[in-house]
Amino acid sequence: MTAEIVSVGTELLLGQITDTHAPHMARILAECGIGCTHRATVGDNLDRAVATLRQALSRADVVVTIGGLGPTMDDLTRDAIAIALDDTLEEVPEISEKLRKFFAMRNIPMVESNLRQAYKPTCAVQIDNPNGTAPGLLCQKNGKVVIALPGPKGEFDPMAKGPVKEFLEQMQGSQIIHSKVVRIIGIGESTVEEMVKDLMNGENPTVAPYAQPAECHLRVTAKASSREEADAMIDPVVDQLRAILGHHLYGFNETTIEEATLDLLVARGETVAVAESMTGGGLGARFTAIPGSSKAFVGGAIVYTVGAKEALLGISPALLSEHGPVSEPVAIAMAEAIRERTGATWGVSISGNAGPTADMDGKPVGLTFVAIAGPNGTICDQNKYRGIREDIQRRASQTAISMLRWKLLE
Amino acid sequence: MTAEIVSVGTELLLGQITDTHAPHMARILAECGIGCTHRATVGDNLDRAVATLRQALSRADVVVTIGGLGPTMDDLTRDAIAIALDDTLEEVPEISEKLRKFFAMRNIPMVESNLRQAYKPTCAVQIDNPNGTAPGLLCQKNGKVVIALPGPKGEFDPMAKGPVKEFLEQMQGSQIIHSKVVRIIGIGESTVEEMVKDLMNGENPTVAPYAQPAECHLRVTAKASSREEADAMIDPVVDQLRAILGHHLYGFNETTIEEATLDLLVARGETVAVAESMTGGGLGARFTAIPGSSKAFVGGAIVYTVGAKEALLGISPALLSEHGPVSEPVAIAMAEAIRERTGATWGVSISGNAGPTADMDGKPVGLTFVAIAGPNGTICDQNKYRGIREDIQRRASQTAISMLRWKLLE
Repeated sequence: MTAEIVSVGTELLLGQITDTHAPHMARILAECGIGCTHRATVGDNLDRAVATLRQALSRADVVVTIGGLGPTMDDLTRDAIAIALDDTLEEVPEISEKLRKFFAMRNIPMVESNLRQAYKPTCAVQIDNPNGTAPGLLCQKNGKVVIALPGPKGEFDPMAKGPVKEFLEQMQGSQIIHSKVVRIIGIGESTVEEMVKDLMNGENPTVAPYAQPAECHLRVTAKASSREEADAMIDPVVDQLRAILGHHLYGFNETTIEEATLDLLVARGETVAVAESMTGGGLGARFTAIPGSSKAFVGGAIVYTVGAKEALLGISPALLSEHGPVSEPVAIAMAEAIRERTGATWGVSISGNAGPTADMDGKPVGLTFVAIAGPNGTICDQNKYRGIREDIQRRASQTAISMLRWKLLE
Repeated sequence: MTAEIVSVGTELLLGQITDTHAPHMARILAECGIGCTHRATVGDNLDRAVATLRQALSRADVVVTIGGLGPTMDDLTRDAIAIALDDTLEEVPEISEKLRKFFAMRNIPMVESNLRQAYKPTCAVQIDNPNGTAPGLLCQKNGKVVIALPGPKGEFDPMAKGPVKEFLEQMQGSQIIHSKVVRIIGIGESTVEEMVKDLMNGENPTVAPYAQPAECHLRVTAKASSREEADAMIDPVVDQLRAILGHHLYGFNETTIEEATLDLLVARGETVAVAESMTGGGLGARFTAIPGSSKAFVGGAIVYTVGAKEALLGISPALLSEHGPVSEPVAIAMAEAIRERTGATWGVSISGNAGPTADMDGKPVGLTFVAIAGPNGTICDQNKYRGIREDIQRRASQTAISMLRWKLLE
């Protein structure tokens, strides 16, 4: 069984708002084991909406529309569905009555167009909307299903994950689709693909890569009759991936590299402090985005200027002027100073040039030194990152976290 | 002239990631005066991608594809475009050479599939990608245009708003749509709407609000025959907005509140340092995201734990135990200590509880103190923010920047 999603609304089409409902609906379809093969966005234009719906119905068993069920003249989804299904609209008197009461209760004069919400295709049953005036529609005709949901988030979300998901699960019957994401660091997407290519030929479960900034994810997906059966199919593949990827595999599903690293620190009863120049606090912010990070993250120093390096970490002016702030000796001194001043087990430092131009010493954009000071000494790594300022800063903090993790795993 | 956008990628189709590029591209098309009539999302499936492209080409003059230009077997957009345009692929030897050099320079073994990025439809010219290995494609055949852009944000954004926008503007010729965004802080969307409602009835230019987290933006949009003519229509409206909104209007277009505040500091020859508890470096990271921030941003201390507050800022244990770390006296002491230790003109501190649970002293989630220490003393503001951890941290740093700006404008 396949499904398609059609989002309706000129403000979506023109990019004035970003469509987060369609991805949400796609995830619900996946959880129900229904393959979503196509998504489309059309504006508030009856002809185009009808043409898009007709085409979706020609390919898929289920079409879910999002938006365009409200009271204004722009809201034409119910008209478009009726036309696309060769059906007509009829009034549901109970809904008209409810709408009139709703407005009377609030002492608001009701504009007649509000009554449009009381109409439905004759083949449809209405889906209750506890948080708004526009009911959803569940239309079944000629072996096809069209589900129409309203656009406001507070109305869409509960209807989609409640009655709609329940209906889809029943419709789909036995089969579900379940995935586990394997998160990998320290090797690029094409290398990962090369390493695990034998596992990527499977039909069920499937293994598919997708690149993320400075890391790589593999999604292992099984079709099965239950979550347990799917897990039993996924787990052996994950074990094989773990054997191939070793410590490059750092976590699963939503676990971030900073979370995995904090967990390692907590398990060892150790702590970390940071000394950030180029990232200006971004490394600390990544750690402290994690709830409970204070168990292992102590704090640090943001030493953006040469003066701050001296004032907050006591880096010697001689060292700074001899090597420049973007240098291995300064990065090492920063990591060691913050470790000493805070008493943390590990001191992590970043010094580099995020651009957009070479720094005063002529150090090129992207050049970065990351140092890790620990109980057995200090290491320092030199990199040259490409990209815009944001990318360079992000990659630097990614490297710092990843290097700390490797030290913890040594 | 009409355009359609086709996003390619299974992870998009299944809702694993939310498509923010397609709305961005739609806004760029609107700015060029090109109507976007349809958007579609397909997975990494050659047949479906070809069918979707063929259909888009049957309706629109311009089709922009996003994603699927990378090095893996999944990346099939260039193949799909060649088929949809009845064209073939040819190798661009300079690009193959560049790719080989890129990998050699980094001492990474190059997997052969990387060379797919060196191929293009014969009718295409490549669009330079300064931030990645996959060039974009500009294909022109039989009166139709297909533009293919890579998916990673750091690559997509500069290509879309740079050479692609320039090409589309030239192609569109006479009528353009041009906007200026007015950025407002310290008053909510409905208050702004009430204040400027007389200006919102205009037809050309139009004034439309859109809410952003913790601030509000108004978009002033004119249709005209040139950028200059549009500006001449927009500028008087912006002047009226400035008169109505006063200092609440802090900038235009892409200018962020941190940039506006840094500009004020630089103009006054002053500097700022931060002392962050709850935000863990996020405030420093916002300042240092701005190129050239070292002219006014000195650095700071991340004092996440009680121990770090003592060790790095010398906050007295008595003060900490009497009031708790989330308190006005501690926030004030932090702001004053970082100002003194760095010699910055201004010290800004944040102490609060970002959740998800009440802290050890029973301070509730969202409670936050922000202090600004300056040449004429220290002020402190107490807030209680709602939302998830990320929202609370973001709102705290937003308040800190906004408070500093008001002090500078006093």
